[in-house]
Amino acid sequence: MKILSAETFLEQDSHSQAFDQNNRLLDEKVLDIIQQVRQLGDKALFDYTEAFDGVKLSQLKVTAEEFSEAKELVDENFISSIREAKDNIEEFHRMQLEKSWFFHKDSGITLGQMVTPMARVGVYIPGGKAAYPSSVLMNVIPAKLAQVREIAIVTPPQKDGKVNPYVLVAAREVGINTIYKVGGAQAVAALAYGTETVEKVDKIVGPGNAYVARAKKWVFGDVAIDMIAGPSEICVAADDTAPPAYVAADLLSQAEHDERARTFLVTSSQALAENVKTELYRQLDSLERNEIMSKALQDYGNIIITRDEQETFDIVNKIAPEHLEVMMENASDKLPLIKNAGAIFLGRFSPEPLGDYFAGPNHTLPTSGTATFSSPLGVYDFIKKSSIIQYSKEALQEASDSIISLAKTEGLTAHANAIYQRRDEKNA
Amino acid sequence: MKILSAETFLEQDSHSQAFDQNNRLLDEKVLDIIQQVRQLGDKALFDYTEAFDGVKLSQLKVTAEEFSEAKELVDENFISSIREAKDNIEEFHRMQLEKSWFFHKDSGITLGQMVTPMARVGVYIPGGKAAYPSSVLMNVIPAKLAQVREIAIVTPPQKDGKVNPYVLVAAREVGINTIYKVGGAQAVAALAYGTETVEKVDKIVGPGNAYVARAKKWVFGDVAIDMIAGPSEICVAADDTAPPAYVAADLLSQAEHDERARTFLVTSSQALAENVKTELYRQLDSLERNEIMSKALQDYGNIIITRDEQETFDIVNKIAPEHLEVMMENASDKLPLIKNAGAIFLGRFSPEPLGDYFAGPNHTLPTSGTATFSSPLGVYDFIKKSSIIQYSKEALQEASDSIISLAKTEGLTAHANAIYQRRDEKNA
Repeated sequence: MKILSAETFLEQDSHSQAFDQNNRLLDEKVLDIIQQVRQLGDKALFDYTEAFDGVKLSQLKVTAEEFSEAKELVDENFISSIREAKDNIEEFHRMQLEKSWFFHKDSGITLGQMVTPMARVGVYIPGGKAAYPSSVLMNVIPAKLAQVREIAIVTPPQKDGKVNPYVLVAAREVGINTIYKVGGAQAVAALAYGTETVEKVDKIVGPGNAYVARAKKWVFGDVAIDMIAGPSEICVAADDTAPPAYVAADLLSQAEHDERARTFLVTSSQALAENVKTELYRQLDSLERNEIMSKALQDYGNIIITRDEQETFDIVNKIAPEHLEVMMENASDKLPLIKNAGAIFLGRFSPEPLGDYFAGPNHTLPTSGTATFSSPLGVYDFIKKSSIIQYSKEALQEASDSIISLAKTEGLTAHANAIYQRRDEKNA
Repeated sequence: MKILSAETFLEQDSHSQAFDQNNRLLDEKVLDIIQQVRQLGDKALFDYTEAFDGVKLSQLKVTAEEFSEAKELVDENFISSIREAKDNIEEFHRMQLEKSWFFHKDSGITLGQMVTPMARVGVYIPGGKAAYPSSVLMNVIPAKLAQVREIAIVTPPQKDGKVNPYVLVAAREVGINTIYKVGGAQAVAALAYGTETVEKVDKIVGPGNAYVARAKKWVFGDVAIDMIAGPSEICVAADDTAPPAYVAADLLSQAEHDERARTFLVTSSQALAENVKTELYRQLDSLERNEIMSKALQDYGNIIITRDEQETFDIVNKIAPEHLEVMMENASDKLPLIKNAGAIFLGRFSPEPLGDYFAGPNHTLPTSGTATFSSPLGVYDFIKKSSIIQYSKEALQEASDSIISLAKTEGLTAHANAIYQRRDEKNA
């Protein structure tokens, strides 16, 4: 973890994740997988699962028996925790529901915006060593609240051909019955274009590895996607009232995700900076994933010393962190200074892990500085809007000269003709 | 224009615009342009403008003199029409403004969602033969309402090195002073990554040709984009009360945009189908762009005969048209049957060109069936949300067992540590 000044930090190169010439080789592989899935359907899914996940499946869909089996394997504690989390997530996301609206104007004009849900959504849940039941909740609940009719989960099978039981139980808790044992770019391709077994969806959401991310970028346009997520990040903006042990623990909680996880402490207090640094290495030793964390702190850890609070938040807005903790006195008063952040944790008793699992707001958040233009996953990701326009004969008549004038400016005379035809009484 | 049954129509192949192996050659060119702009900055912009637009510029930015000059070249009629349109567009889009919200829960929990505008937006306005002042209004007004501080327009210069005067005047009417004379993939690259003159933006919006569309797809992720637009489309759902001359005129108004524009009439009335077909060719002859329209009707025109109203709307939802006209009795009663459409025009006096220029709703709409997952451009495209989480000491204490249980399920012990550190009174 290096300590550096705001100036030095700002001079460092900015990152660019999406447009990377080095991805060309990965792209070739991903494009080939997508093409194979489009041509061969299920057969390609079985073949890739055998090749990449090392398991020969006889069917893709998780059976009712497998769901029941999973329930036996998880403890009661887990189920009650997940139900509490589910209630909190539902309560928060219900606030995001949008209504259709209409308004009337003079001489018989009605304008409006109609909100409709997407019909089908696919959720990618990573497999591998860890289980991600919280991702099931965070991706499925907003889609359910938006009234999406069909939600399918795709997830790579374990070596024994099963799906992680915590994922299955979490899925059932939020009403999901359709889970396909397929991961990687092949799962994204199946959701984007459909196969014999997997139905084409309107949107693909959920986290995944580099293959998944690139595949999502490629199918984007034929299908909607949530975002192209990079490694996790945390930024703590703190003053000298922040307990160093808390700051250090929270930085470590993100660093354990990934060797490339980015961690930032931004503070005008040199003393806090030094104390947090000491605490980091003290806590690190007693934690399980300390190799990952050491590497992450080494390569992507920054303690940035600023001149004052204004500069602290200038740096924060420049970083546009996925997770921002404000560990300052009167933390909520700082909100007007924050322009870019995925989720904002206010005060010393709001550690980031609280948001990962439990508090209610979504944990799918914009990474790599994309909080400058992206939002947390929400109900709004699963709806779409249609504009409504209704004019009366009189209202159209009044508007017609202006429409014709603008249409002619753009050289579009058939547009003007649509108005002229309605002026001709014999056409009615 | 062919007449076919619903079954025959549904058997036709569906389209896929984004993932197209034939785009590989175009991609190579586009990637090269993006790379050059990133490396050489302004110099690349000047060079490409000379090569592609045939004009050697001495500076990229439109000057105050050029704005004044433009004002002399356009007629008063145009200015008053554009002001009327502007008022209507502002009135409609103001309804889309979103507020931040918060709520409190027991034992000192505050949760919320803060809405902030993007800082910088770039609007692409096509050049070439036609002028698109209406695109200026439709793209700029929602960004302005969202409180975006900096909005820049990019547009390819004419052969004389100037920008179309209608575009300049429209830009001034909506408060834009920053216009760069650059188009194509090079303009997209400049907005995405910045050059000496062009500042990097957070989002790129606006229509463009194939180069622009592919460039937007490539930079997506490093910057937000609105959508990847295909050719324009119209679908008229009509019963036998619809005047054939109106239906034909409206189909033609979209067909004139592009030889690849798709036009659909969906109706259970065989008589209407025949009469519209006759009308189409009658009106066609008297219109300027009849070659484009003939080609579009020939290649992408469909009159689909359904068994009943339910099947009519099943087909409509399958097409998910950019523009949908409902020319039926009691048209507004049909809204519950519509699942997918960009903009919906109700009744016979609501022709599509009314929405292109004047009524108020946005004319940037999802094409090629993407209304299944996309919305019209709106104020919501220029804002982003941050979640807010604030817990008291007591509230965190109450939640801590559940958080620790979920963290451990996911194998993330440093997440659990963030909670443990706060239980230890000596750390406070």
